[in-house]
Amino acid sequence: MIATNTILDFFLETRHTTETICKPLEIEDYVVQPIVDVSPPKWHLGHSTWFFEEFILKSFKDNYECFNDSYGFVFNSYYESFGKRVVRTNRGNLSRPTVNDIYKYRHYITKQMELLLQDNDSEELIELVEIGIHHEKQHQELLITDIKYILGNNPLLPKYNDTFTEHTAENHNREWLSVNEGLYDIGHNSKDFCYDNELGRHQVFINAFQISNTLVTNGEFMEFMEADGYKNALLWHAEAWDWLSTENISAPQYWHFDNNIWQHYTLQGLKEIDPNAPLTHISYYEAFAFAQFKGLRLPTEFEWEVSQHLFNWGQRWEWTESAYLPYPNYKKADGALGEYNGKFMVSQKVLRGGSVATSSKHTRPTYRNFFHPNLRWQYTGLRLAK
Amino acid sequence: MIATNTILDFFLETRHTTETICKPLEIEDYVVQPIVDVSPPKWHLGHSTWFFEEFILKSFKDNYECFNDSYGFVFNSYYESFGKRVVRTNRGNLSRPTVNDIYKYRHYITKQMELLLQDNDSEELIELVEIGIHHEKQHQELLITDIKYILGNNPLLPKYNDTFTEHTAENHNREWLSVNEGLYDIGHNSKDFCYDNELGRHQVFINAFQISNTLVTNGEFMEFMEADGYKNALLWHAEAWDWLSTENISAPQYWHFDNNIWQHYTLQGLKEIDPNAPLTHISYYEAFAFAQFKGLRLPTEFEWEVSQHLFNWGQRWEWTESAYLPYPNYKKADGALGEYNGKFMVSQKVLRGGSVATSSKHTRPTYRNFFHPNLRWQYTGLRLAK
Amino acid sequence: MIATNTILDFFLETRHTTETICKPLEIEDYVVQPIVDVSPPKWHLGHSTWFFEEFILKSFKDNYECFNDSYGFVFNSYYESFGKRVVRTNRGNLSRPTVNDIYKYRHYITKQMELLLQDNDSEELIELVEIGIHHEKQHQELLITDIKYILGNNPLLPKYNDTFTEHTAENHNREWLSVNEGLYDIGHNSKDFCYDNELGRHQVFINAFQISNTLVTNGEFMEFMEADGYKNALLWHAEAWDWLSTENISAPQYWHFDNNIWQHYTLQGLKEIDPNAPLTHISYYEAFAFAQFKGLRLPTEFEWEVSQHLFNWGQRWEWTESAYLPYPNYKKADGALGEYNGKFMVSQKVLRGGSVATSSKHTRPTYRNFFHPNLRWQYTGLRLAK
Amino acid sequence: MIATNTILDFFLETRHTTETICKPLEIEDYVVQPIVDVSPPKWHLGHSTWFFEEFILKSFKDNYECFNDSYGFVFNSYYESFGKRVVRTNRGNLSRPTVNDIYKYRHYITKQMELLLQDNDSEELIELVEIGIHHEKQHQELLITDIKYILGNNPLLPKYNDTFTEHTAENHNREWLSVNEGLYDIGHNSKDFCYDNELGRHQVFINAFQISNTLVTNGEFMEFMEADGYKNALLWHAEAWDWLSTENISAPQYWHFDNNIWQHYTLQGLKEIDPNAPLTHISYYEAFAFAQFKGLRLPTEFEWEVSQHLFNWGQRWEWTESAYLPYPNYKKADGALGEYNGKFMVSQKVLRGGSVATSSKHTRPTYRNFFHPNLRWQYTGLRLAK
Repeated sequence: MIATNTILDFFLETRHTTETICKPLEIEDYVVQPIVDVSPPKWHLGHSTWFFEEFILKSFKDNYECFNDSYGFVFNSYYESFGKRVVRTNRGNLSRPTVNDIYKYRHYITKQMELLLQDNDSEELIELVEIGIHHEKQHQELLITDIKYILGNNPLLPKYNDTFTEHTAENHNREWLSVNEGLYDIGHNSKDFCYDNELGRHQVFINAFQISNTLVTNGEFMEFMEADGYKNALLWHAEAWDWLSTENISAPQYWHFDNNIWQHYTLQGLKEIDPNAPLTHISYYEAFAFAQFKGLRLPTEFEWEVSQHLFNWGQRWEWTESAYLPYPNYKKADGALGEYNGKFMVSQKVLRGGSVATSSKHTRPTYRNFFHPNLRWQYTGLRLAK
Repeated sequence: MIATNTILDFFLETRHTTETICKPLEIEDYVVQPIVDVSPPKWHLGHSTWFFEEFILKSFKDNYECFNDSYGFVFNSYYESFGKRVVRTNRGNLSRPTVNDIYKYRHYITKQMELLLQDNDSEELIELVEIGIHHEKQHQELLITDIKYILGNNPLLPKYNDTFTEHTAENHNREWLSVNEGLYDIGHNSKDFCYDNELGRHQVFINAFQISNTLVTNGEFMEFMEADGYKNALLWHAEAWDWLSTENISAPQYWHFDNNIWQHYTLQGLKEIDPNAPLTHISYYEAFAFAQFKGLRLPTEFEWEVSQHLFNWGQRWEWTESAYLPYPNYKKADGALGEYNGKFMVSQKVLRGGSVATSSKHTRPTYRNFFHPNLRWQYTGLRLAK
Repeated sequence: MIATNTILDFFLETRHTTETICKPLEIEDYVVQPIVDVSPPKWHLGHSTWFFEEFILKSFKDNYECFNDSYGFVFNSYYESFGKRVVRTNRGNLSRPTVNDIYKYRHYITKQMELLLQDNDSEELIELVEIGIHHEKQHQELLITDIKYILGNNPLLPKYNDTFTEHTAENHNREWLSVNEGLYDIGHNSKDFCYDNELGRHQVFINAFQISNTLVTNGEFMEFMEADGYKNALLWHAEAWDWLSTENISAPQYWHFDNNIWQHYTLQGLKEIDPNAPLTHISYYEAFAFAQFKGLRLPTEFEWEVSQHLFNWGQRWEWTESAYLPYPNYKKADGALGEYNGKFMVSQKVLRGGSVATSSKHTRPTYRNFFHPNLRWQYTGLRLAK
Repeated sequence: MIATNTILDFFLETRHTTETICKPLEIEDYVVQPIVDVSPPKWHLGHSTWFFEEFILKSFKDNYECFNDSYGFVFNSYYESFGKRVVRTNRGNLSRPTVNDIYKYRHYITKQMELLLQDNDSEELIELVEIGIHHEKQHQELLITDIKYILGNNPLLPKYNDTFTEHTAENHNREWLSVNEGLYDIGHNSKDFCYDNELGRHQVFINAFQISNTLVTNGEFMEFMEADGYKNALLWHAEAWDWLSTENISAPQYWHFDNNIWQHYTLQGLKEIDPNAPLTHISYYEAFAFAQFKGLRLPTEFEWEVSQHLFNWGQRWEWTESAYLPYPNYKKADGALGEYNGKFMVSQKVLRGGSVATSSKHTRPTYRNFFHPNLRWQYTGLRLAK
């Protein structure tokens, strides 16, 4: 657990960072929800605030006065325990509360939390605040990827700003790093913060394997495309093959073929694709099909965890072959916080690593990210194994 | 046709009124599209502007410089003749151009039109400008009804302003006005502006009929509801019966049953329903079922037209029993303007009259409004006949 | 009304004809429902039988013993008055009752009706029996068109038999028949049977018009196709244009372009298309677009009715420009029979004439057939007017 | 691999058993497809036959004459390698080929295979025949469950026969069987037939666990229902909670609450539910929610495999917590046979065991069955672990 005397700074820095991310936005950019997976930025601002109000202030602050009773209905994401809420698909249909009102709400809650933390340093409180902070950091990453989607799907292709760099090309060649077979410990193992899904440290037997020191690059994926990889059914899962045709997919997300060259939308606007840069915005399906094409495979999340100290990571979330399942002895938290992770442990794949959008201190070697296999709007990439 | 010396005033007044309607809005209210039929206010502002640019300035103004080439793609509504466009369902997914940019666009086009009209008074131009003005007036009405939907479906139920009055209760009792059988002239018959769908004045033989001097009231409709009219299949069309269950409908739009009384959302906020006020926000299906319940029927659009001088109208669009079909000798305009009316002449019902949201000079006894029979977000009401 | 002494013969002949239509079928052909509009033949056999049991035998026959209590649930088509029923989309999911059981049911009901008609000649009964007979004749036509769909959409394209002829090519050239303007009587006007929707004979004023003596031919429609009529948005209604792309339509139903020639599936199997034969299996949308292409139009149902004695008809149902609406003073029957016609009087178009699939004595100059504008599996054609 | 001299007997017995399963059916029962997961019995008969023709006869039999060239299009299930095919949702729309034609096809292929096997005993052939036999055995199980669905969803609830017993109630009480932690070998390990997904025998480290000797019973599940387990969101996965409300689920499949008692449809018709019999026809979602309710969990497929010799199994497929993923070093077969298993290894859960519908010799301790987590029409049950 975090030290009592630093939690307030950590909290305030996090609250501030969220607002910094939104600085380049126009008011209109805060409002829209072009696909169900992308939430309006104003919803993220309100939801991450509501989390502190609902889980902490209402229980810990004496005579706490709710900012607005109806905000619970608007900003609850999926906690069935707290009653009715705006259904996810409707988030983009709500013009009110306004962005300005939501900032007022944020500042009110930030202030109330500040007062609370000056008064109360109980372990129970600190633990919840830490969860709330990490929860907000998760939404910081979603803010960035959702903003990218909102701007990148606008026909005017406006840029976010001139400084957000989505990658640094790596120059070194692929090497295969070897790991011996054996029993390995998996899962979180320190006093630092982690989510419940990383706990239950346990042994896993892993066969000898080799893993690439580098991520797959845009150039490698272009070879797959030129070899008609998107049209070869034998490379794809059955549900992926249907997805390709239903969604009319023939390139990674944000790629545009204009004037005979491949460009992609970045937060700095439309740019020519750098073949040496790591590939991103691909689904698990595409990651798998590419590996099949190369006669290789994706690592499991366990292979990744035990070899991650051998290579650089953190620029892209890396799809693994592992399904998102509970670790042995997984125990979800009591009450509403128990809805945080456990109820998503079916039909999703694990990603490991982190990305350019991941907040500082919001990933670690045992962190388990998870998404449905068709999703591409995160900074998702791929590392090969064999 | 309008006189040359007044067209500019008429144009400027119309452009100004559109912006006045939007005054009470927050920026966020301009952006959302909660259902496909409701367009974002900023889209209306841009589209009514694009219409002048595309149909007039590009053809009539020498060396006209387009404000922004990509706006055609964004603001074209349905003119297939002008190539690709943002699909209707995506209007609410676009944060850019911003509201501010669209106002700049509006002011630029208004200015360019002003310059053009000072230079050119050709009949061809004046005719097109007149269409553009009436087109914008149509969108003024849609702006009001779309704003009502956007605010009225927000869980916070914000009001639009304190002054927009949606009805004045009528006190007089129902009387049946009798009209003799005979051959009547139907259709527009003056030099004033009208749409192509009103032209082709022609004779129609009408049987003797009686028509109510008043609209059906909320109180009368409550009797229908209390008599379980929504649950009696024999009162409804087959497709209406399916619609009731699919859409889970059991009251007019915007009605809420709270604290044991019926309230409805109005542009002034939530109010108790006045039983003496005319019923509004009903579908054709509900209008028909109510008439069946009373053993009566809706008038045809011809009956309405030949009797409309006998009663007051203009507070509510009135569903008629008539399908929206071309008049004999209907001739649609050449080119893109031919797409204005004719291509909707199937599967829709005619409404006659006008509403509190209708712009001044934007209705007349021969005006033919039309909507699909399930739609309710306009100020739609019902007058009985027998 | 039909004479008492002939009703039994009429009844028995009708029951027999229905079964004759099904003779060429394999058991499997009786079962499937490839689209919602097409009912399984065994359902038609059961439903037309249930109609006599439910509307007549249960009320008129003393101590009538129901064949099987659960058949009402299975064979009710849309009569809300009779309670729950198998939803339409599920008709093709029911393997039981078997075809054999349904024939037993038919023969039981036929026998019971025969006994009843020998005993009872009340006017009320005879009227209901007449409706039941005409109802079954309607289903005879649907049987043929549904069988055509079932076989014609099977990849093996099996034929129905070798003798069912779908058209006789007409040789005479198009002539324009002129009709004067004036007041005309519309609607049924004899003691013979008709449906309630034809009643309420009334006057309609019709402008002078010309109507073609012949139907549009396959050859004429091929010219439309060669001129890219399917790709010219200006010819189509807005909803038709969407329909073309959603349904991927570029030719009339049952047309196949193989080996560089146009063929079509007929009940005698696949055949080369005869350019001189009347066009069939087109939607209203296609009929309208074709007329637009020719600078002409479809007749209204009133124009058709007052001119029908001037030309041959009966080979194809002819789309008219008229919406299916009640005649003045239309009065639907009491009780469940009131659901027969009236509840479909919205969003459909009127067809006049008859087709090669229409049972003898089941059409007349005042007969109003109706279908949604997108449907094509009936023998639908087109006659031009101007 | 199977011995050469027994393969023909094995083949003939399998072909015969398939037809025996269909004996009680009416022709109509062979045709329908009430949901996409359930294929018409005649399709199973044709598809299992086509498999031998396409994979074996066309390659191994000299001058082999195809029975009917168009059958490949009709009976291909999902092999993209073999070109176009009838889409899965359309299987129930095809009345032809008739059941009789398909039996002719079966007998032709059986005969041709018999001749081939008398001539040729190459290892390559025998291996393929063995796969074809096991493939047909898989379809035997699907035949039974699909027939149950077809009959059990018919409003008449016809029985299949009087002899097919779906369970034998077990009397012994629950005991917890303990297994020590350790490294265990997982995967197939003999010369007998298995599928590619069982190969790649490898070590897995398993923590100490306890597993129930018995399956969960109907009575236990009724307690869950009485405790409103279906209404307690905290017990369910997020996607399961949506599924409950979309599909309107509040009991296992085939359960009916009539006359105040719970009954269920069985192949012998409707019967009162035996509280001591093992629960069946539940989804993974329901299995998981029940385990949550008991504070327990499902075993992983590895736990099941290493403890299966300690308990009886084979009466019900048992949902495990494991996702269906490739074993280390999984290698899919070359060509079309490579589509058999591998392309389904995403978004599905593993089931272990077998059921009353499983063909003899068609399961074993290493057999990995797999279905999507929402499916219930198989004989699926649940064994608890902790």
